[in-house]
Amino acid sequence: MTRAAKIIDRCRELARISDVPGETTRLFLSPATRDAHTLLLWWMRQAGLETRTDDTGSLRAVRRSAHANAPTLLLFSHIDTVPNAGPFDGPLGVILALAAIEELHNTPLPFNIEIVAFSEEEGVRFSFPFLSSLAATGQLTPEHLARTDSEGITLAQAIRNFGLDPDCIAETCALPANCFAALEVHIEQGPVLEADDASLAVVEAIVGQSRFQLTFEGQANHAGTTPMSLRHDALAAAAQWIVEVERYAASYTQLVATVGRVETFPGAMNIVPGKVIATLDVRHPRDESRHAAVAHLLTKAEAAGALRGVTVHARLQSEQKAVPMDHALAQHLHQAAGRAGFATHSMFSGAGHDAMILAPYIPTTMLFVRSPGGLSHHPDETVREQDIEAALATVINFLLHLHPHR
Amino acid sequence: MTRAAKIIDRCRELARISDVPGETTRLFLSPATRDAHTLLLWWMRQAGLETRTDDTGSLRAVRRSAHANAPTLLLFSHIDTVPNAGPFDGPLGVILALAAIEELHNTPLPFNIEIVAFSEEEGVRFSFPFLSSLAATGQLTPEHLARTDSEGITLAQAIRNFGLDPDCIAETCALPANCFAALEVHIEQGPVLEADDASLAVVEAIVGQSRFQLTFEGQANHAGTTPMSLRHDALAAAAQWIVEVERYAASYTQLVATVGRVETFPGAMNIVPGKVIATLDVRHPRDESRHAAVAHLLTKAEAAGALRGVTVHARLQSEQKAVPMDHALAQHLHQAAGRAGFATHSMFSGAGHDAMILAPYIPTTMLFVRSPGGLSHHPDETVREQDIEAALATVINFLLHLHPHR
Repeated sequence: MTRAAKIIDRCRELARISDVPGETTRLFLSPATRDAHTLLLWWMRQAGLETRTDDTGSLRAVRRSAHANAPTLLLFSHIDTVPNAGPFDGPLGVILALAAIEELHNTPLPFNIEIVAFSEEEGVRFSFPFLSSLAATGQLTPEHLARTDSEGITLAQAIRNFGLDPDCIAETCALPANCFAALEVHIEQGPVLEADDASLAVVEAIVGQSRFQLTFEGQANHAGTTPMSLRHDALAAAAQWIVEVERYAASYTQLVATVGRVETFPGAMNIVPGKVIATLDVRHPRDESRHAAVAHLLTKAEAAGALRGVTVHARLQSEQKAVPMDHALAQHLHQAAGRAGFATHSMFSGAGHDAMILAPYIPTTMLFVRSPGGLSHHPDETVREQDIEAALATVINFLLHLHPHR
Repeated sequence: MTRAAKIIDRCRELARISDVPGETTRLFLSPATRDAHTLLLWWMRQAGLETRTDDTGSLRAVRRSAHANAPTLLLFSHIDTVPNAGPFDGPLGVILALAAIEELHNTPLPFNIEIVAFSEEEGVRFSFPFLSSLAATGQLTPEHLARTDSEGITLAQAIRNFGLDPDCIAETCALPANCFAALEVHIEQGPVLEADDASLAVVEAIVGQSRFQLTFEGQANHAGTTPMSLRHDALAAAAQWIVEVERYAASYTQLVATVGRVETFPGAMNIVPGKVIATLDVRHPRDESRHAAVAHLLTKAEAAGALRGVTVHARLQSEQKAVPMDHALAQHLHQAAGRAGFATHSMFSGAGHDAMILAPYIPTTMLFVRSPGGLSHHPDETVREQDIEAALATVINFLLHLHPHR
C-alpha cells in the first residue's frame, strides 16, 4: 500500500465511526466522537506524539523540536462531520498531517509541530460553526456556551457530559503562545481543480459572504379569475430577479450568487402567489466587489417587483468579510510543491474554514486537494490517490524548508 | 331596507353560522351546516315553498306552477364554504333566487321553480369538488362515496352521520325529470367587472383547465465553491420558465397561466438547488388554445433546463374541458337585464362552478355579479348593493319572460 493509499484508508476507517449506523454522521461531542478520538489518539501516539484532549474536545498532538524554546507550527483541520457526510472533509487534513510527521522520522526540525484536530467546524449541533477554533483564539463567549442543541442541551453542558470542563477552555484550548504559522490541508469541495485538471491549489483568501432574505409581497388572487394584466404575482417578480442573479454573477469575475430556497405563499396550485420568501447568498474574494454586487442585485429585485406592483423587502442575515491567507506562507507552499515536482494553482475558497478564524491571529495558509466531481457533504465524496501523494509530498517539503524566523 | 340590502343582510346572517367561531367556515355536512339548513329552510318556507333535504344534504325548495305537468326551472348555487370564507360565494345565488321568488308574489308562471342549495361545491372536506351537483346529475360513483375526509370518515358515513341515506341518493338527489333550464347567480370572484366599471356579466363558457406538476432536476452543489459556469441550477431554470409563463400568457388573449407553488430542494441558503418542483395551471375558454399554450410552455421549460444541464419532467395532474353555457338562455339573460335597465357584459368564468356540471344535462346559464377588489375566498369578500339590485331585477325579468318551449 502506498503512503497516499494509507492516508485514504485511514480516512475511510475513521468514516466508519458514526452516530448513525450505515452512514458517516459524527456530530460535535457525540458518542461516536469519543470512538473517533480513541482511534486518532492511537495513531498519534504510535507516531510518537504527545497527545491531549482540550476542553472543547479537540485533539492536540505535539512533535517536540530538540531546540530549546522552539516556536510551534500548527497543522490543523476538523474531525466533526455534517449528517451523512463523506470521509475526507476535515479528517484528511488531520490524517495527512500525521502521515507527514510519520514520514519525517527523526529528521530534526527547528520548530515544534502541533496537530490540532478541531472538534467543531461544521456548525451542525449548535447551529453555529467554528466553535473549536473560536475557543482556540480566545473568541468563545458565554453566549456561545449558552447555545442549545436540538435537545435543549447547552454547549457548556455538552462539554461537561463529555467529561470536559468548560471553565478550563481559556487555559486548555488556547493556541501555543509561540505559534508562528499554521497550515490546513482540505479537500476543495468544489469542481474548479477538476475542471482545470489539477491536483492542488494554494488558497489566497477565503471569500467574504453576504446572506439576505428577500420578501416579495404582491397579492394572492384566484388563478382562474384574475387576468394576467390585473395580477401582482410575487413569484413572477422573484423569478425575474432569480434569472438576473444568475446572469449577473456569471458575468462578474470570481462572483458567486445563489438563490437556494424559495417559498411561495399561500403555495396553492390555483392561487397567484401573494408572497414569496427567497434567500440570497453572495460571495466574492474582494469585499468592495461583494458590496457592489449585493447593491446591484437588491436594486434588481425592487425593479422586478415594481413592474408588477410587488414590494420587496431585503433583510441582511449575516455578513462575513473576506479573509486573506498569509502571502509569504502561500509562496512557501507553492515552492514546496514545485520542489516536490507538483504544480499548484492559486484559488479562493468559496467555503468557510477554521483557517479563516485563525488567520487574524497567526500567519495561516491552506492547501486544497482536488474533489473529484466537485462532490462534498455527500457520502460519495472522494479523493484521488495521486492528489493525496502530491499534497503529502508538498507538506513534507514545506516542513523541511520552513524556518520560523525567515 | 331595500330589497337588495335585505339579500346582503341575509348572506351576512348566514355567514355567522360557522364551524369555526369568529370566521365563516362551513364544510360539507358539518354541524354548522345543520344550523344553516334551519335558517334557510325557515326563509324558504316563509316564502311559501315546499322544502326538503336530499340525501347529499342539498336543500330543495319548490314553487309550483298552476299549470298541470309544468316543467321546472332550476335556480341554484351552493352553501358550503372554503375555510375563513366571505359571505357571498355560493349563498348569494340561493338567497337572491329566494328573493326573486318573494318578489313574484302570486304572479302565475308557466313553470315550476326549484331552488337547489347544493351542499358541496368547494371540494374542501373530501378534497374533491362538485359532489352534490355530480349526485344531482347521476354522476356520483361508489368511488366518490368511499373518499375519506381528514379524519378518515368516508363520504357515505358522513351522509349517514348527518341523518341521511347514501343508498337513496339516486332517488332523492336527481334533478326533476322535466327540467328545461337552470340559472346560477354567483359573484365573479375576479377583478374584471370592477376594472370595466360594470355590475353584471353573462357567462359564455367556463374555461378549460390543465394542471401540471413540473420537476426540474439539476445538481445540488455548494453555493460557495461551485463557480457559476459549472452549475446545474434547477431553480434558475425554473425561474426563467416562470418568467416565460407570465410573459406568454399576458400576450395571448383570454389565456391565464399560473405557477402557484415552487419548492426547492434541498432548500438550503448555501446550496445550489438540485431540484425544483413547480405547479402550472393553464386556463382558456377554447380547448385548442389551451392545448397549444400548454405545449408551448412545456417546450419552454425544457429549453430553460437544457441551457443549464437541467432535465425537466412534466406530469399532467388534471384536465378539464371548457364548458359552454347555453347560448339561448344567455341571450335571454342579456335581454332581461336590458329590459330592467341594466347593461350586461359577456365573459368567461375562470373558476369552476356547479353550472359546469349541470350544463351537459340541462340548458344552463350563469350571471356574474361584480366582486369589489376582485376579492374572493377571503373574509373581506363583499358585494355592492347597486349590483345586487341589478342582479335581482334581471332575474325577476328573466323569470317573467321565460317560456319553457320557446
